[in-house]
Amino acid sequence: MHIIHPVILCGGSGTRLWPLSRKSFPKQFTPILDGRSLFQATAARLNGPGEGLDFAAPVVVTNAMFRFVVTEQLVGEGIDPGAILIEPEGRNTAPAICAAALFLSRTDPDALMLVAPSDHLIPDDRALRSAVAEGVPSALSGHLTLFGIRPTRPETGYGYLELAAAAEGPTPLRRFVEKPDAETAARLIDDGQHLWNAGIFLFRASDILAAFETHAPEVLAAVREAVEQAEVDLGFLRLAPEPWSRAPDISVDYAVMERSAGLHVVPYDSDWSDLGGWDAIWSVLDKDAAGNAISNHATAIDCTDTLLRSESQDVELVGIGLSDMIAVAMNDAVLVAPMDRAQEVKDAVAALKAKGAGQATTFPVDHRPWGWFQSLVVRDRFQVKRIHVHPGGALSLQSHFHRSEHWIVVQGTARVTVDDEVSLLSENQSVYVPLGSVHRLENPGKVPMVLIEVQTGSYLGEDDIIRYEDVYARDGAE
Amino acid sequence: MHIIHPVILCGGSGTRLWPLSRKSFPKQFTPILDGRSLFQATAARLNGPGEGLDFAAPVVVTNAMFRFVVTEQLVGEGIDPGAILIEPEGRNTAPAICAAALFLSRTDPDALMLVAPSDHLIPDDRALRSAVAEGVPSALSGHLTLFGIRPTRPETGYGYLELAAAAEGPTPLRRFVEKPDAETAARLIDDGQHLWNAGIFLFRASDILAAFETHAPEVLAAVREAVEQAEVDLGFLRLAPEPWSRAPDISVDYAVMERSAGLHVVPYDSDWSDLGGWDAIWSVLDKDAAGNAISNHATAIDCTDTLLRSESQDVELVGIGLSDMIAVAMNDAVLVAPMDRAQEVKDAVAALKAKGAGQATTFPVDHRPWGWFQSLVVRDRFQVKRIHVHPGGALSLQSHFHRSEHWIVVQGTARVTVDDEVSLLSENQSVYVPLGSVHRLENPGKVPMVLIEVQTGSYLGEDDIIRYEDVYARDGAE
Repeated sequence: MHIIHPVILCGGSGTRLWPLSRKSFPKQFTPILDGRSLFQATAARLNGPGEGLDFAAPVVVTNAMFRFVVTEQLVGEGIDPGAILIEPEGRNTAPAICAAALFLSRTDPDALMLVAPSDHLIPDDRALRSAVAEGVPSALSGHLTLFGIRPTRPETGYGYLELAAAAEGPTPLRRFVEKPDAETAARLIDDGQHLWNAGIFLFRASDILAAFETHAPEVLAAVREAVEQAEVDLGFLRLAPEPWSRAPDISVDYAVMERSAGLHVVPYDSDWSDLGGWDAIWSVLDKDAAGNAISNHATAIDCTDTLLRSESQDVELVGIGLSDMIAVAMNDAVLVAPMDRAQEVKDAVAALKAKGAGQATTFPVDHRPWGWFQSLVVRDRFQVKRIHVHPGGALSLQSHFHRSEHWIVVQGTARVTVDDEVSLLSENQSVYVPLGSVHRLENPGKVPMVLIEVQTGSYLGEDDIIRYEDVYARDGAE
Repeated sequence: MHIIHPVILCGGSGTRLWPLSRKSFPKQFTPILDGRSLFQATAARLNGPGEGLDFAAPVVVTNAMFRFVVTEQLVGEGIDPGAILIEPEGRNTAPAICAAALFLSRTDPDALMLVAPSDHLIPDDRALRSAVAEGVPSALSGHLTLFGIRPTRPETGYGYLELAAAAEGPTPLRRFVEKPDAETAARLIDDGQHLWNAGIFLFRASDILAAFETHAPEVLAAVREAVEQAEVDLGFLRLAPEPWSRAPDISVDYAVMERSAGLHVVPYDSDWSDLGGWDAIWSVLDKDAAGNAISNHATAIDCTDTLLRSESQDVELVGIGLSDMIAVAMNDAVLVAPMDRAQEVKDAVAALKAKGAGQATTFPVDHRPWGWFQSLVVRDRFQVKRIHVHPGGALSLQSHFHRSEHWIVVQGTARVTVDDEVSLLSENQSVYVPLGSVHRLENPGKVPMVLIEVQTGSYLGEDDIIRYEDVYARDGAE
């Protein structure tokens, strides 16, 4: 049985699924298709034994903003969080994969790595694992091994892998084919020799590092320093910012794969989607007889081939007489577009950013290591928040210069510290936190604690905070 | 100078402007086009002296649900609320107009009445008043006088008034023309003899009552009893429910106008719209070069001839590549439809009602005589409300069986009674209202008071209330 180390890349934040995917909480962490996130599905697919493989605890590469979400979602799936490498900034896939390879080679230079994006849909876990198992002999023979999806339509949005011959099993790669035009795409899908490049790779750490050494030594040099100088912080490995910033911002395809020889490709014949837009989401969802994919709290009247999604139990979305349309409604943002313009959603995000709308990048719900909070209303001199604290969770010991807070527990039990006073509050009890007082909120119980916080004051930003102690070792407003 | 009594009908609640217009707060009370409501604009147009007329305080016919809104909005315009007649239930225009005529004839049997809907757009107040002045001699000669809008397009959605001759001034009516098909409509607009029926009437009380006596005696009999047995309640005239329920549910056109002889029509040549759908709203709004009407918090990318409205400062609406579309977004509901299907919005409301969605008929904001409140979040065992109390406003003295309340003042000053305790709370002070305690909330100040209410308990419905005293003499949960 081969031990394989999953390397899961989840530092990115695409905007093509706005308003559901935003910089502050991107699509891989959102339950888009069912109760679990794509990141969780990816981690679960690449976990434990099965199909002749045994997966070790994952190496996750992400950024600081998502580190607690990663831990929480892995724990939610019952998966050992393994190693979480924190990128000081996003530098595309080459530095991320290089860092994971260097990290793994510390304990085993020949560690077998399966690198996977965290935001794709692969419904058949066993088929994927079988494909990985098929690729193991290639990887153990020193071939950088890629996985290619058997195309089902003349897609112009993906790059293609051209095989040396039409084949079922692992096959030498002849060349990479850039995103084709429609005519070329139509030709490519018929010969059995062209597969979609899924961005999934299998290789030994030593082999990929040798390839970096040969083809992208400047990536390897910078990342090596960033890993060597990394700081361990509550189990997270924080890559060193200064050397990391010297690593080129480049994909592993451009930096290494397209320059290497002897690549092998394992064809993958089962369903796959990159979920790279609302059109892709629509195509994988269950649809009614008229081709509509309709969520809870959405109503379609005489619509065809339309995606209608309400992402909030508090928002009713109604579409009348729509054809080939996308409508996505959230508490704070709504998108409406024809299906064939799904790729332009990123322009919408840019437009919102330009006009200074917070919805471009952030959500009203903010995830923290201790739970989450939602701003219910913000006005000039007051704000109301709903705060959920996980069992055992604790907010930092803190104070504010510009606001007082009223806390009312509406579910569970809170342990509250205000200056020298510590008290236990249960449902329907409240406490006042005067301006300037040093305070902390904890959930000592076994069930979630919910409280309503009413802030009043002249300035209500998250950055009016002084932290005295924090079990999560956070900086500033995070 | 002729004294004219405006009779403003505002008991109805159309659904074609859903989600902005709902049963609980319909379009005539909503600021759709500018800062004032259509009802306010109507009342202001028909107020005081000008153009050779002098309007008396209005007689407003509405239903119980809207009586405080009517008062508040009239006061907001600086208009004497006059008489407010409350229909126990909606019975279309014939009984409403009959009731107003009976009410006015108590003091002056020959009172000159100008009956107007409250939800139409008439931008040129002076032109309308001039038209009314033109109609006065007809009305004083005993002719039931109608106002007909000079058509600007072959509209199939309105009934037409066919004149005896093409003319500028008051002209005898030849006949009513039912809503025509497209071909007929195209013919009608060219001969100068066909005008849109605007539902605006001028007549003496004695003349319309005589017409009811002749053509609809069953309406007159029932309404007469309802007026005779009406109760005066804080200045509102509550028509008696039992006789009122015997009045036929019928329009004044069918009941009286179409059966009467000697009708006169005054042509009206200025702008007018019944705002009878989102397409009509779009057509009267300012548009960009591509024909888009775009509100604050809405963004159009490459759209044409599209209405994009966000009705909330907290919701960003984005449309991409839309043509001839309507998208209206609110905090709790979103509508998307092609412009030419605007009339089907009422079907959407029916569909939502059928699935039990509160958004079909009610808003998260609830208007009360003392101010308004908004539910910020409702879950099983807690609810958070934001409550605005006008200066001088007072909630009833009340208690609840199933919930406790925490009140935190975030703006202004509150006088709070909890059992025997009366206290003044200012910004940032709070009070606890235990389950079962008898309590009252007032705003004794000169500026609006805002508080956050956090309710906890096993049942949180508005109908868990016992009222001990109420300055507004309300029943139950209203």
